[in-house]
Amino acid sequence: MIDNPYYTHDFHGDYDLIGIGALDLEEGGSIPDCRLAVATFGTLNEAKDNAILIPTWYSGTHQIWRDAYIGPDHALDPSKYFIVCVDQIGNGLSTSPHNATGVNAEIAMSNFPRVRIGDNVVAQERLLREHFGIERLALVTGGSMGAQQTYEWAVRFPDKVLRAAPIAGTARNTPGDFLIAEIMREAILSDPGWNGGEYTSHTQVVDGLTRQAHIWGVLGFSTEFWKQEVWRAMEFESLDAFLTGFLEPYFTAMDPNALLTQSWAWQRGDVSRHTGGDLAAALGRITAKTFVIPIDEDQLFPVRDCAAEQELIKGSELRVVEDVLGHLGLFAVAPTYMPQIDRHLADLLAIEV
Amino acid sequence: MIDNPYYTHDFHGDYDLIGIGALDLEEGGSIPDCRLAVATFGTLNEAKDNAILIPTWYSGTHQIWRDAYIGPDHALDPSKYFIVCVDQIGNGLSTSPHNATGVNAEIAMSNFPRVRIGDNVVAQERLLREHFGIERLALVTGGSMGAQQTYEWAVRFPDKVLRAAPIAGTARNTPGDFLIAEIMREAILSDPGWNGGEYTSHTQVVDGLTRQAHIWGVLGFSTEFWKQEVWRAMEFESLDAFLTGFLEPYFTAMDPNALLTQSWAWQRGDVSRHTGGDLAAALGRITAKTFVIPIDEDQLFPVRDCAAEQELIKGSELRVVEDVLGHLGLFAVAPTYMPQIDRHLADLLAIEV
Repeated sequence: MIDNPYYTHDFHGDYDLIGIGALDLEEGGSIPDCRLAVATFGTLNEAKDNAILIPTWYSGTHQIWRDAYIGPDHALDPSKYFIVCVDQIGNGLSTSPHNATGVNAEIAMSNFPRVRIGDNVVAQERLLREHFGIERLALVTGGSMGAQQTYEWAVRFPDKVLRAAPIAGTARNTPGDFLIAEIMREAILSDPGWNGGEYTSHTQVVDGLTRQAHIWGVLGFSTEFWKQEVWRAMEFESLDAFLTGFLEPYFTAMDPNALLTQSWAWQRGDVSRHTGGDLAAALGRITAKTFVIPIDEDQLFPVRDCAAEQELIKGSELRVVEDVLGHLGLFAVAPTYMPQIDRHLADLLAIEV
Repeated sequence: MIDNPYYTHDFHGDYDLIGIGALDLEEGGSIPDCRLAVATFGTLNEAKDNAILIPTWYSGTHQIWRDAYIGPDHALDPSKYFIVCVDQIGNGLSTSPHNATGVNAEIAMSNFPRVRIGDNVVAQERLLREHFGIERLALVTGGSMGAQQTYEWAVRFPDKVLRAAPIAGTARNTPGDFLIAEIMREAILSDPGWNGGEYTSHTQVVDGLTRQAHIWGVLGFSTEFWKQEVWRAMEFESLDAFLTGFLEPYFTAMDPNALLTQSWAWQRGDVSRHTGGDLAAALGRITAKTFVIPIDEDQLFPVRDCAAEQELIKGSELRVVEDVLGHLGLFAVAPTYMPQIDRHLADLLAIEV
């Protein structure tokens, strides 16, 4: 167990660690005592038909959803819905390499097994069914890796997902996006302080984490973000101040093995694993009313990649969000971002299914 | 002097090393004995008005121009023009950190001074005037950093440049592109084998050079390049084979300090240094007939960045090249690439000025 102040209630507020038992994994091996960090908002109604599931993205947690996306002024309104944010396995809050202790000690650090998008979805389904008694979801939505999990839900459990809203993510990862994640991984793996995954403090990997932050600076935002100096609106005085005051501290606070666990899954997100590689067949299984919501300046999941998948989903709609921040528009920094998201999610939730 | 087989006539065919004497630099310091690698094609006519100058891009040399762009079937036709390809300072062939010996020994390796785009252009002007007796150029063209030098020529020496064709590059580098170059630099700088610039063989920096190759894989090409598996047309059987058989060997053959020398200049390309930061004023100086030629899928120098500059150049035209390879379309791999370049350059050369 490595002490990391980032993965605490101090930083992440209220959440519960809920055990779902042993979780066997697609790649082999298992997590002996799989615990999911879960934050809920609102109340499950008696019919248990007002539940919304939100899986998390790479490096992210339930926190950004709580702070930016969920509230009485948003489509994700806790007065109407029971909203369940589940932190993905390996995100530092749920069972992760650096916090694997006790019965999980055998999978600590470099011994942590490979976890796929599908493993997360299986874990979430078990959590919802066994812990909350939820059999069907009014909506599954998430950004980036959360979109990957949303697609996985809609394909793997079509009867359980009434509506789906994958934001800034794809159902089958593209090779270009695989390579993007790879250079982010290499930034960490190349740091001698990483030490094959057996560091004793994440601060030993600060160089690699910083380099990764810089790669996010390039690919997470758009060239227009930098050209227009959008960081000024975030109250930074210079590009360097934004890097050293925001991007670098954001990523260097995190656990390197947690990031590597997540990016391994990110690289391999692919619903067509259910259909022998046939993406059209996989997406053809979806019965959820689906809004595909890419961000126009996203370099990781470009609109054309998202649109090509949307066309394979029956009755779906393409809803493009405009945001010069690009992929990291997901942070909901631009004042024009959440109104677009809210409109799309509200439209989707208003559709009777 | 480090022996590197890549920077030899074996790899680069015929070229001359031409000394232009001591070169004082904008950032201070000087190159005591500045030698430029120069490859020429065709014959200078008596009027000395058929000369075309081609400066090189980051990591590139005259070789790609010789092999792909110049010939009797191309607009850059040696039967009509005297074509002078000048390798930029620090590109490994011209005076560079790893080949600085003799009177240049004081600037070897980590002692190599900072060289700007403007220093290269000053050196080239001196070379053309003193060595070839050329006072005016029918055309200056180049890709990427070659485009930066083309713009610098047209702004610094407007009377000497009749036509200008910057391809896939900008007159003033954008902050986003600065950051792209920075993550490429960090890939090298973070390799312990780089040793503060004092390695004894470039092979000691193979890890950093490999990581840089992977970053080029992401940003140099487009996501569509990878999605469409365009590498198959280059006769590779898999993405990994393309990486290990092409991109990695290409960059790991090079000298790390040479790449760092070039990228430092690349990051700071800016013609508005002549006009106190006023880009419109700088571009307003251009009297050359100018075709601005971006590549539609270029992530480093997006069309919109090039178009914004083109609008500031009197009588200029925007000629967008379509190429799914993106920035590295400059390698002229796609069969549809050179016909577009040739058409634009031929159109430009046909204009009486």
